[in-house]
Amino acid sequence: MMKANVFRAPGRIQLEDKPVPHAGIGEAVVRVRLTTICGTDIHIVKGEYPVAAGLTIGHEAVGLIHELGPGVTGYHVGQRVLLGAITPCGQCEPCLGGQLSQCHGALGGWRFGNTIDGCQAEYVRVPFAQANLAVVPDDLTDEDVILLADIASTGFAAAESGGVRLGDSVAVFAQGPIGLCATIGAKLMGAGQILAVDPDPFRLRLAQRFGATEVIPAEEDVVGRISKLTLGRGVDVAIEAVGLQETFENALRVVRPGGTMSSVGVYAGHLRVPVEAIGAGLNDIRIVTTLCPGGKERMHRLMRLVESHRIDLKPLLTHHFKLEDIGKAYDLFASRRENVLKIAIHV
Amino acid sequence: MMKANVFRAPGRIQLEDKPVPHAGIGEAVVRVRLTTICGTDIHIVKGEYPVAAGLTIGHEAVGLIHELGPGVTGYHVGQRVLLGAITPCGQCEPCLGGQLSQCHGALGGWRFGNTIDGCQAEYVRVPFAQANLAVVPDDLTDEDVILLADIASTGFAAAESGGVRLGDSVAVFAQGPIGLCATIGAKLMGAGQILAVDPDPFRLRLAQRFGATEVIPAEEDVVGRISKLTLGRGVDVAIEAVGLQETFENALRVVRPGGTMSSVGVYAGHLRVPVEAIGAGLNDIRIVTTLCPGGKERMHRLMRLVESHRIDLKPLLTHHFKLEDIGKAYDLFASRRENVLKIAIHV
Amino acid sequence: MMKANVFRAPGRIQLEDKPVPHAGIGEAVVRVRLTTICGTDIHIVKGEYPVAAGLTIGHEAVGLIHELGPGVTGYHVGQRVLLGAITPCGQCEPCLGGQLSQCHGALGGWRFGNTIDGCQAEYVRVPFAQANLAVVPDDLTDEDVILLADIASTGFAAAESGGVRLGDSVAVFAQGPIGLCATIGAKLMGAGQILAVDPDPFRLRLAQRFGATEVIPAEEDVVGRISKLTLGRGVDVAIEAVGLQETFENALRVVRPGGTMSSVGVYAGHLRVPVEAIGAGLNDIRIVTTLCPGGKERMHRLMRLVESHRIDLKPLLTHHFKLEDIGKAYDLFASRRENVLKIAIHV
Amino acid sequence: MMKANVFRAPGRIQLEDKPVPHAGIGEAVVRVRLTTICGTDIHIVKGEYPVAAGLTIGHEAVGLIHELGPGVTGYHVGQRVLLGAITPCGQCEPCLGGQLSQCHGALGGWRFGNTIDGCQAEYVRVPFAQANLAVVPDDLTDEDVILLADIASTGFAAAESGGVRLGDSVAVFAQGPIGLCATIGAKLMGAGQILAVDPDPFRLRLAQRFGATEVIPAEEDVVGRISKLTLGRGVDVAIEAVGLQETFENALRVVRPGGTMSSVGVYAGHLRVPVEAIGAGLNDIRIVTTLCPGGKERMHRLMRLVESHRIDLKPLLTHHFKLEDIGKAYDLFASRRENVLKIAIHV
Repeated sequence: MMKANVFRAPGRIQLEDKPVPHAGIGEAVVRVRLTTICGTDIHIVKGEYPVAAGLTIGHEAVGLIHELGPGVTGYHVGQRVLLGAITPCGQCEPCLGGQLSQCHGALGGWRFGNTIDGCQAEYVRVPFAQANLAVVPDDLTDEDVILLADIASTGFAAAESGGVRLGDSVAVFAQGPIGLCATIGAKLMGAGQILAVDPDPFRLRLAQRFGATEVIPAEEDVVGRISKLTLGRGVDVAIEAVGLQETFENALRVVRPGGTMSSVGVYAGHLRVPVEAIGAGLNDIRIVTTLCPGGKERMHRLMRLVESHRIDLKPLLTHHFKLEDIGKAYDLFASRRENVLKIAIHV
Repeated sequence: MMKANVFRAPGRIQLEDKPVPHAGIGEAVVRVRLTTICGTDIHIVKGEYPVAAGLTIGHEAVGLIHELGPGVTGYHVGQRVLLGAITPCGQCEPCLGGQLSQCHGALGGWRFGNTIDGCQAEYVRVPFAQANLAVVPDDLTDEDVILLADIASTGFAAAESGGVRLGDSVAVFAQGPIGLCATIGAKLMGAGQILAVDPDPFRLRLAQRFGATEVIPAEEDVVGRISKLTLGRGVDVAIEAVGLQETFENALRVVRPGGTMSSVGVYAGHLRVPVEAIGAGLNDIRIVTTLCPGGKERMHRLMRLVESHRIDLKPLLTHHFKLEDIGKAYDLFASRRENVLKIAIHV
Repeated sequence: MMKANVFRAPGRIQLEDKPVPHAGIGEAVVRVRLTTICGTDIHIVKGEYPVAAGLTIGHEAVGLIHELGPGVTGYHVGQRVLLGAITPCGQCEPCLGGQLSQCHGALGGWRFGNTIDGCQAEYVRVPFAQANLAVVPDDLTDEDVILLADIASTGFAAAESGGVRLGDSVAVFAQGPIGLCATIGAKLMGAGQILAVDPDPFRLRLAQRFGATEVIPAEEDVVGRISKLTLGRGVDVAIEAVGLQETFENALRVVRPGGTMSSVGVYAGHLRVPVEAIGAGLNDIRIVTTLCPGGKERMHRLMRLVESHRIDLKPLLTHHFKLEDIGKAYDLFASRRENVLKIAIHV
Repeated sequence: MMKANVFRAPGRIQLEDKPVPHAGIGEAVVRVRLTTICGTDIHIVKGEYPVAAGLTIGHEAVGLIHELGPGVTGYHVGQRVLLGAITPCGQCEPCLGGQLSQCHGALGGWRFGNTIDGCQAEYVRVPFAQANLAVVPDDLTDEDVILLADIASTGFAAAESGGVRLGDSVAVFAQGPIGLCATIGAKLMGAGQILAVDPDPFRLRLAQRFGATEVIPAEEDVVGRISKLTLGRGVDVAIEAVGLQETFENALRVVRPGGTMSSVGVYAGHLRVPVEAIGAGLNDIRIVTTLCPGGKERMHRLMRLVESHRIDLKPLLTHHFKLEDIGKAYDLFASRRENVLKIAIHV
């Protein structure tokens, strides 16, 4: 038996005993060493994003291969691997067409803690293991790589989908964990000006440390400030990293004609597009939405950035808990107290 | 003096006498032989899109070079040229960055009949003539090329911005002149399935003739029909070519995860994005807006398609009027009577 | 036991009895109904491309699912499927990175008749079946789709990798089966001018039928002719579809500055690049090489083009043989007698 | 009258008196404050690249606007501007099609010191001034921006044309001024591994300072080393920045299947492509050649990178001379003595 953090009902998660899973054809079982909590998990706990009662939640993990199912080759038990939040099969139409995150259909690549048991447990069964076991190089610690599973992959993808080019002006709306990674991503891709927006001074300071060239408190006239800072041009790429009407709209308003609004926020209800912000539909703006990219190729690619010291995400791991105390970790994370950004859950 | 179709006030246009313009530095004057009326002109006449009182309207023309200003080289008086609706300067930041239609700022490439005197006149002054005089090959008639100036360039661009790939499924919402050209554009780019939507049976028949593989009357359950026709996948590219909330929303609803919604409609007020249609922001959809591409390189490129008989747009020229009767032509065009699509105005 | 066309030694292939294969994990066995011979098979027979003695050759097939191995889902025995020449796993680094044809390493996606038993047999074992069984719609015949497995996928990819845009000028060097498909591909993608080059009048006639706007006998001054036909501009995209120094070089010489030379030929020895043909390295030319794309998503995409009557490749199937007579078919195919293009081998 | 560095014959350049030029329509005259010498200038002096006798050479300059010709708007005399090596017109077919460096035809964007009088003079006439006067922000010095005119724009473009993605492995062959800028460019674009090759230990040290993660002396087994450092994968992008058969060939040999070889070297004679290095034409490799991008949009974009301290190219300016001593500067630059990289010529 093993311990697992199980969703029971809105507002109720608890550590339960579950049988250790077994690896079927093409699967693997990984003994988890480090996992973390994502904003999406909070949505699940609150009942805002529905999952089945009894499901183990969590979708980010580093651990050791415990069992390899039939048909999985080139790995051995005991290897340390990073599991991405998105676990594409690689073999369906969307995957073969390059849409790994939309595996088998809309949002289908997101399985852990959504449609199958997730990573906040002592063991996790990995589907399509051949495509999703990313071996961690010896010179990297678990903490070095855990945030690549989701927030770094997502945040960087915001900049990548935005098509940031050398010397571009980029605005990043919200500097939570994903927004901060979008700021890092914009810097990594060679932006010449990075304007970070957030209400929280602590997060703005971190944004500056991670590459923002200007920080803008959200209570200011954000659109006006950005217009001034870009000499009236607007930004080439505006990134929305929180999922609110206000930031969505502001992002549209600050993009220059022909620019890109890149969205990685999770929205609810309806979004309004003020048509003057898109030149009545004629200003050649693109709006791009992106779900976290996954698969072992992505994970290896990101790990190379850590290995060469291009990125260091450990400052985002502001707190540490043991799996036994994961309930407290959820409370802290949901409260946003103590400048919490990401919590390392040690198993 | 010359005749020109002048906007005086909402609801009032009239043929007036104006002096023949002269060509300043980098400009040319063209004697117009053929022009046409665009849906945008109707918006102007109705006062829905504001232009200055006294402005000559119209933005599509074929004619003969009448005068060449200082600094324009490689042309001679008497040459027949096609003028695109969009006349980029080629030398400002947006132009050099590849955003020719956003020349000098949002929508700035659209000058004729918007910010300077337009083409519904005996003569028209052409700004940035070096970039905008597209010589018409002798084997093409005026009628062969006039629709390349705007609707074909726009409609095809809907397919190009959508990134249509060989074998793609494409839905085109509305089969007015631009929508029909989007249908042609989707075919030209190798779509494997083209689903054309419109309320008008005449336009649907034309869509079929131009390449639609299925036509769908707008009063049907469009989203359901397209889902069925794509075996539940959704389309790779959905094109919006009219500018309404309903078609905008339907276009979003029929795009597959990871697909593209390409918009060339002109919108008013606010647009609503139902977030379930974009997977709460997580289904990797792109929304792309496009203004008509212009400049002589574009016009030459499109003329090659006519020369090689890849396209024949003349069936869209359903009616012919003389410049003296342009008032009647506007009435007919606005009324949508007699299956009118585009009206050739002979000068 | 089954019949299979086996490579024994350079110059020697023969029909042999082999055991019917069985489907391991993730595999399928298909009973072949229709296969064909590729130019690459001739290279193999001649010993120019080395494969193991005893290997069944051939890499194109339509047939019925005979057996499904463990882990393959969503299919049933008896379904009719098209097998692409390239059978990617979908789960290795190159596949996840979008390089399906370079699965597991250089050229690794080409398995049938190269590294595993191929399709010129009564039964064939399909690796990574989940990614490679493309169900054929009922309204298409075996002959309708067999050429999508390799030559159409390759020829079209020549145009796709070349980035053919609406109205482009395209030159296609050599009009063998793949070159003819490149000509079709250029047309499908909206080329405005397609210049087909070949020494064989029969093939040039076919090129014209398939979309070439001009045909140029290879014995003429090809570079001069193309320069004249493009008014000195050169072509936007030049496609090399045979693999010779002369055509490679000519293709480079006719591309305009900033254009693309797209190569799908198979070369031997060394290629020479005359540096004046690439502006001493400064004319912004791209040279792109492409191996046949495969996988079921690709096959479905191409089948949609047949279903909507955008393409009809059956005229390329100039001859028909039974599997028992495959030796004679090879003789004919290698000889290029009787205007042979592709031979349907019925099993 | 003014002083100008004039090419007279192979091996002979000299400072001469020439009349100060005047600005015609669309032109400007700039009083040069800072210029530099390029490797191409050495080719010209040696007679390896032919220019007309009597031509002022040099194609990089920072200076003050001295005169504005008719038709140039938005500038005033006395403004400080950076002039790119490439001065596109913005209005011809190639420019409108996005090929600014191939303005008017092959290599046509390169005018200064090639087809018109260049920048190693007290005054220089700027063609197409509207597109080519890039105002320098007050907070940047002349030395801060002079190298953006050519080598930085070219070196960065090597990485851009190569399509470097986050986490990519990149090899850069030769660490001269352009190669070093390619190394910087690869870093700016987010490469995860940058392998710099050069015979000169000083240049390798500089490469390391600029972002190379490993340096490889050219006398070693470069192909073997890179294979080892990439765990046998090969690099995603290989950049050739010198123009030799050996580096061209090695660059091809180290690219992974499906990767890109990006070339900015200037070649002479013939290049050989060993076909095994491109998988007989089947390994999906792309070879991309790039001429320096120019125009004011490019210059502004690059200046933003200096303003935000993303790049500092001043360490490349190893020596300083006055215009009067430009002969000595050429001697030093050609000799490669004293670890010379770029020489600032103060006017």
